[in-house]
Amino acid sequence: MKYIGIDIGGMTIKAGVVLEDGTILCKKTVETDANQEDVKIVKDIANLIDGLLKENGIEKCEIAGVGIGSPGSVYDEKGIIRYSCNINFKNTPIAKLLKDFTGIDNVKVSNDANCAALGETLFGAGKGAKNTVMLTLGTGVGTGIVVDGKLLTGNRSAGAEGGHITINLGGPTCGCGKKGHLEAYASATALMNQIEDAVKKHPDSLLAKQVAKEGLSGKVVFDCKEQGDKVAENVVKRYLKYVGIGLVNYANIFYPEVLIIGGGISNQGDNIVKPLQRYVSRNVYGAEYNPKIKVACATLKNDAGIVGAACLVM
Amino acid sequence: MKYIGIDIGGMTIKAGVVLEDGTILCKKTVETDANQEDVKIVKDIANLIDGLLKENGIEKCEIAGVGIGSPGSVYDEKGIIRYSCNINFKNTPIAKLLKDFTGIDNVKVSNDANCAALGETLFGAGKGAKNTVMLTLGTGVGTGIVVDGKLLTGNRSAGAEGGHITINLGGPTCGCGKKGHLEAYASATALMNQIEDAVKKHPDSLLAKQVAKEGLSGKVVFDCKEQGDKVAENVVKRYLKYVGIGLVNYANIFYPEVLIIGGGISNQGDNIVKPLQRYVSRNVYGAEYNPKIKVACATLKNDAGIVGAACLVM
Repeated sequence: MKYIGIDIGGMTIKAGVVLEDGTILCKKTVETDANQEDVKIVKDIANLIDGLLKENGIEKCEIAGVGIGSPGSVYDEKGIIRYSCNINFKNTPIAKLLKDFTGIDNVKVSNDANCAALGETLFGAGKGAKNTVMLTLGTGVGTGIVVDGKLLTGNRSAGAEGGHITINLGGPTCGCGKKGHLEAYASATALMNQIEDAVKKHPDSLLAKQVAKEGLSGKVVFDCKEQGDKVAENVVKRYLKYVGIGLVNYANIFYPEVLIIGGGISNQGDNIVKPLQRYVSRNVYGAEYNPKIKVACATLKNDAGIVGAACLVM
Repeated sequence: MKYIGIDIGGMTIKAGVVLEDGTILCKKTVETDANQEDVKIVKDIANLIDGLLKENGIEKCEIAGVGIGSPGSVYDEKGIIRYSCNINFKNTPIAKLLKDFTGIDNVKVSNDANCAALGETLFGAGKGAKNTVMLTLGTGVGTGIVVDGKLLTGNRSAGAEGGHITINLGGPTCGCGKKGHLEAYASATALMNQIEDAVKKHPDSLLAKQVAKEGLSGKVVFDCKEQGDKVAENVVKRYLKYVGIGLVNYANIFYPEVLIIGGGISNQGDNIVKPLQRYVSRNVYGAEYNPKIKVACATLKNDAGIVGAACLVM
C-alpha cells in the first residue's frame, strides 16, 4: 500500500507518497498561504496531492490514507486543528474537508511533534521500540510520546505539552508566561539566551569573537568548544544538563526503550548523545535494576514530517 | 463474576472478594511475615484466600481471577515482584506461585500505587474517566497513571516513578539520593520537614505549641491554620503549591480528566481540593482552550488496595 504524508509548516506545505517501509516514493511542495481562509489552505493541500499523484502516475485508489502533521493544537480524534500560531487555522475540520476535496476516505491529523515521534519510532531512531519519548528542541520544546506503539495525546488531544513542566521553581519565564519550565532551559531559544549571557560576561572569549563574526547559533558554541574554548564548554555542559534533566524526568515517568532528540541541535550527533547518555544512565530512577535507556538523535531529518504524518494512517 | 484483591503491606496482607461494581463482599487479614522466605509469604496468601472463601461459602470456581498489589518494584507482564524495601521479595514469581498454590489460573500483580490508581479510576474519584493521574502522598510520592483505561507502566514496568521528577534544580535531597525531586517537596515526609522548619523558626506560634502537645502530623498544621495561625497557613500554602506544581506537570503531559490525590492528607478533602483546583486551573497549559481538569481526593480509602488489586483482573 501507499500512504500520503502532509507536513504543514509556516512557510511551506510538503506532501509525499510513503511506502510501508517508510521510504518516500516522491514528494512535492507548495508555499503556505498562511493568512488565507482556512478552507482555501485545505484546498491548496488537495491540489498539492492531485499534482503529486498525477506527476508520478499514481492512481488515487492506490492510496490507503492521508496523514497530516500540523503545528499548533490539534484535536486528533475529531480531525480538527484548533488553532495554530502562524497559520490561519481555527477549529478547522481539516480531516473532513480534505476527505471531501480528495475523495480519500482515511484522513487523520495530529500535532507535528507527535508525527515526528511516531515516524522516528517506526522508521528512525526508535525503530523496533514500542515506547519512546522524543524531545524536539526548537523555538520551544515539543514532546512526542509513544506508549505501546500508540501516540499519547491525552484527553481531547490536549496533552503531551511536555515542554511546559516545571524543572526549576521561579526560574526564567517560558514562552507560555509561566516560570521555570523545561522549555525555558532546553529549547534552542534558551540555548541562544545562554550563549548571549556568556558572551556578555566573557567578551574576550573565542565564543564572543565567533558570535560577533558568524552570529548566534547552536553550531558556533559547539565549534568553539571543539576548539578548546572554556566559556563555550561551560555553556554546552550546562545546556546539556538541562536537556538531561528533561530526559530523566520523562524516563522516570515512561521508562521508554529510547529517548530521542530532535530539532537542529540533533545534527551534533555524538557531541550531544554521549554526554546525554551518561547523564540519563546515571540519574534515571532504579538504573541498577532496570534495562538501560538508549539516547539517540532523530535520524529522519528533513523527511521526518512527511514520514511521520504518513504513519498516522499506517 | 467475583474477583479477589490482595493488598500486601509491610504489616498486614488483606484479601477481599470484590464484585463487578467494585463493592467488597467479604474480607480477611493476616499479619505479614515480612522476613520469611518469599515462597512461604506467598503460601500465607494462598491460605488467606482459602480461609476467606471457606468462611464465606464461596467456591473457587466462582472466582474469575486474583489481583495482587505490592509495594516495591513489580514486573507486571512477567508477574514478578523484583524487590520490595520492607518485605522479603526478590525476583519472586508471585503470579505463578499463587496460581500453583490456589489452582486459580488468572493471577496478576502490579505496584500498589498502580492498583490504587486503577481502583480509583474504575470505582472511586475518577469514576467514568478514561485518563487519570493519581499522586499518593505518603513516605514518598507514588504515581499511578491510567491512559485510555489502561495502566501506564513503561518498558518492563519500570516507569511511573513519578515522584522522581526534578521540579527544582539543586533542591533538597530526595529519598533516592538525587536533588530537587517532587517527592522531596510534596510527600507527607516533606510536609513534616516543612512543619519542623516552621516550628523552629516560630517557636511562639500556635503551630509550635500544638506540635509540642500532639506531635508532628499533617492534621496538626491544617487544624492550626483553621484556627487562624499564620505560620501554619504559610506552611500549608507552600506545601500545596508544591503539590500543585506536580499536578500541573502531570496535567501538561497527560491532560487527564481527573487528577487524584491519595495518602493520609486526602482526608483533608476540600481543604486541599479547593486550593489545588484553583492552582491547576490557573497554571495548566492551554487552559483557555481545553476542558477543565478536575482535582479530587481518593474516595476508596482503606479498601483502595483490595479493590484496586481486584481491578487488575476485571
